[in-house]
Amino acid sequence: MKYLFEHADILLTEENGFSELNNAYLAVDDKKISYIGKERPSGEFDVVKDFTGKLLMPGLINTHCHAPMVMLRGIGSDLPLQEWLFEKMMPVEDRFNAKTIRFASELALLEMISTGTTSFSDMYFFCSSTAEACIEAGIKANICRPMQSFDLADDYKTMYRKLEADELYNSYNGAGDGRILIDDSIHAEYTCREDIVRAHSLVAKERGTRMHIHLSETKKEHEECIQKYGKTPARWFADLGAFDLPAFAAHCVWISDEDIALLAEKGVSAVHNPSSNMKLGSGFAPIVKMQKAGINITLGTDGAASNNNLNMFEELHIASIIHNGYMLDPTVVKCTDTLRMATVNGAKLQGRQDTGALKVGNCADIIAIDMDKPHLFPNNDTVALLCYSAQGSDVCMNMVDGKILYENGEYLTIDREKVLFNARAAKKELLGY
Amino acid sequence: MKYLFEHADILLTEENGFSELNNAYLAVDDKKISYIGKERPSGEFDVVKDFTGKLLMPGLINTHCHAPMVMLRGIGSDLPLQEWLFEKMMPVEDRFNAKTIRFASELALLEMISTGTTSFSDMYFFCSSTAEACIEAGIKANICRPMQSFDLADDYKTMYRKLEADELYNSYNGAGDGRILIDDSIHAEYTCREDIVRAHSLVAKERGTRMHIHLSETKKEHEECIQKYGKTPARWFADLGAFDLPAFAAHCVWISDEDIALLAEKGVSAVHNPSSNMKLGSGFAPIVKMQKAGINITLGTDGAASNNNLNMFEELHIASIIHNGYMLDPTVVKCTDTLRMATVNGAKLQGRQDTGALKVGNCADIIAIDMDKPHLFPNNDTVALLCYSAQGSDVCMNMVDGKILYENGEYLTIDREKVLFNARAAKKELLGY
Repeated sequence: MKYLFEHADILLTEENGFSELNNAYLAVDDKKISYIGKERPSGEFDVVKDFTGKLLMPGLINTHCHAPMVMLRGIGSDLPLQEWLFEKMMPVEDRFNAKTIRFASELALLEMISTGTTSFSDMYFFCSSTAEACIEAGIKANICRPMQSFDLADDYKTMYRKLEADELYNSYNGAGDGRILIDDSIHAEYTCREDIVRAHSLVAKERGTRMHIHLSETKKEHEECIQKYGKTPARWFADLGAFDLPAFAAHCVWISDEDIALLAEKGVSAVHNPSSNMKLGSGFAPIVKMQKAGINITLGTDGAASNNNLNMFEELHIASIIHNGYMLDPTVVKCTDTLRMATVNGAKLQGRQDTGALKVGNCADIIAIDMDKPHLFPNNDTVALLCYSAQGSDVCMNMVDGKILYENGEYLTIDREKVLFNARAAKKELLGY
Repeated sequence: MKYLFEHADILLTEENGFSELNNAYLAVDDKKISYIGKERPSGEFDVVKDFTGKLLMPGLINTHCHAPMVMLRGIGSDLPLQEWLFEKMMPVEDRFNAKTIRFASELALLEMISTGTTSFSDMYFFCSSTAEACIEAGIKANICRPMQSFDLADDYKTMYRKLEADELYNSYNGAGDGRILIDDSIHAEYTCREDIVRAHSLVAKERGTRMHIHLSETKKEHEECIQKYGKTPARWFADLGAFDLPAFAAHCVWISDEDIALLAEKGVSAVHNPSSNMKLGSGFAPIVKMQKAGINITLGTDGAASNNNLNMFEELHIASIIHNGYMLDPTVVKCTDTLRMATVNGAKLQGRQDTGALKVGNCADIIAIDMDKPHLFPNNDTVALLCYSAQGSDVCMNMVDGKILYENGEYLTIDREKVLFNARAAKKELLGY
């Protein structure tokens, strides 16, 4: 399909920020952006859309998510973390199966797509169900089945997880015309044995995947690792080879200055999960220090059980303000920084060189914002407006690889009512009511 | 008008939290709630609405706002506070007149009403314009013209402000069938002389208004007051008589333990402004300590120049999570606490005994949430859903004093397009573009 968007405002990604082209044209040819400019391009188009008053911007990239956890939204709110995790989350998680993961993933996609996410990085289980849901919906996803291994008695389950990860890679890496990429993953230091980390890092390096981990999310995790191994989780992962391939670490709340230098040296991307870190009482990731060290910082929602939604506009907002409050300095973590985290930096983390920015030759992974809203007036600064004022509900179009997935409240690749019907069935199966 | 909402879920305010009545009835007779229950009430109704899948809840009360500052939205983002305030805000503010304040207030009301605010407390100037806009729109508002007085050379302006405050009180207190209440106000310690605070507190006490102030918003303000007067801003206000009437203090970020005891003793309400405190780098208000002291804590957006919107669902969310992150404890500042701040506590602050909770005899100040949204499923905990997952855009009805102001995206008392047209004119006059 050839699309032409005319009279649109277009947000362009520059070396160190963003610029804007007003009342301009953007053309899409099949999966790619074929033209951006002030003059109307020549040629024939299948669809011409007048986008007066709409802003075209790169789709948002959510780089740390557990999509199926939407089914656990709101359970155990305001409880201590251990009680929440072990008494409220895990018993429900144990009841998931391939079918309920499929239904849960589809529910998550409704939310993600309508709020402007065009690609996400997901870590969970029964991942082929999530992959199938993404292929059908047309969204991009980097999916991983994390390795966990508690002790030797757990060897049977560990082997099963490894088989699941291998099967996932073999069946789905590059699926959906390349929209699905399979990552490898070690869940976290506190949930995995050293020998498994070492072995799985070699596997991942060999097949050329990326390594998705949780890192120093809580003080307890960070300090207990030091007690146990005499080193931080980051150093532990590095020593076991997990950073000898493109790796990315969610949370990074308690990492030390030495850890920051290590992540920078190894080229590990850090995923900032501000809502989850606040809600669970984990703390403030040292974003400013990581920025200074040159680490590629991205944004993620984490699962909806600890967020409690999958709305990247909320992450943009919360990431843009909390560090000012914590550091007593309104000049740190600027909105241009957070918008880059949620777009171009996320694309880099995912190993997708051809998305995250609107430019000719890149994939047409584009969202449109309806700027005709009282809370988006006046527009004195577009990037500030997007990060501090805009809502997920201002997204009026979501296009991935040149295909429109969502427009003006309608899903074009997902049957919304069927997904909600199935989600109700899954809820009953999982929660018993 | 007599309304009957049938098959609605209804959020009821209890002594220490909330309860929910499902698939129930709520009737409105003229301005009041006349029935809430599981059985269909007898009698005739002018309008019967099937609210299956919709939640009725008390309208949100925004207790610290500078509504006309919407025109300054996004200006000077990420700048140091002093530069932002003196170089970016004040030059524009100096250009406001009665007409542009009217247009700006109307723009603010579009946003507030559509995101579920039924009443707000506003501090700004040319207040009669704001009052007129509120009367026409049908929203409730406590409005004040703050006293400011920098030095003796400023006496002329001080007198003018006093006349404006008096005129506002005489013309508008109780206007709009009681929906408009006029408060008195001292802007802040750092902007007012002692003699003026003392004199104006007596005036306010005599006319039975409430006193709206800024208190210890920044470290600089708090510490410079101690240097200058040998006491904290709270003690300074108390000693000058400003707390000898019902008073409420915005921000309260840097108040000491002694200040907290003082506010509790004097019955001063504290307004929590989490977005603004984060964005401007002011810091974390000691909400947990204030809760323990029994202070009436409420929620406010502050102006859109430092927020950057007037969406109380964002304040609910941010207030519910940031203290967990700051105190490294997920059990503090629960979502039931913040929802009470935004409803029943706000009503108490405003001196409105008959709103803030859905119960028979109270004003019909009601909002409805469309629960048929992917991000609001499953509902494992309604209050958690409202505070952590819901969006301002989920509001599908806003009713004040039994009159529907907004329903399903349509404004019933405001001409949206005219307001946006006028806002464009005001923008040109204020900003020159």
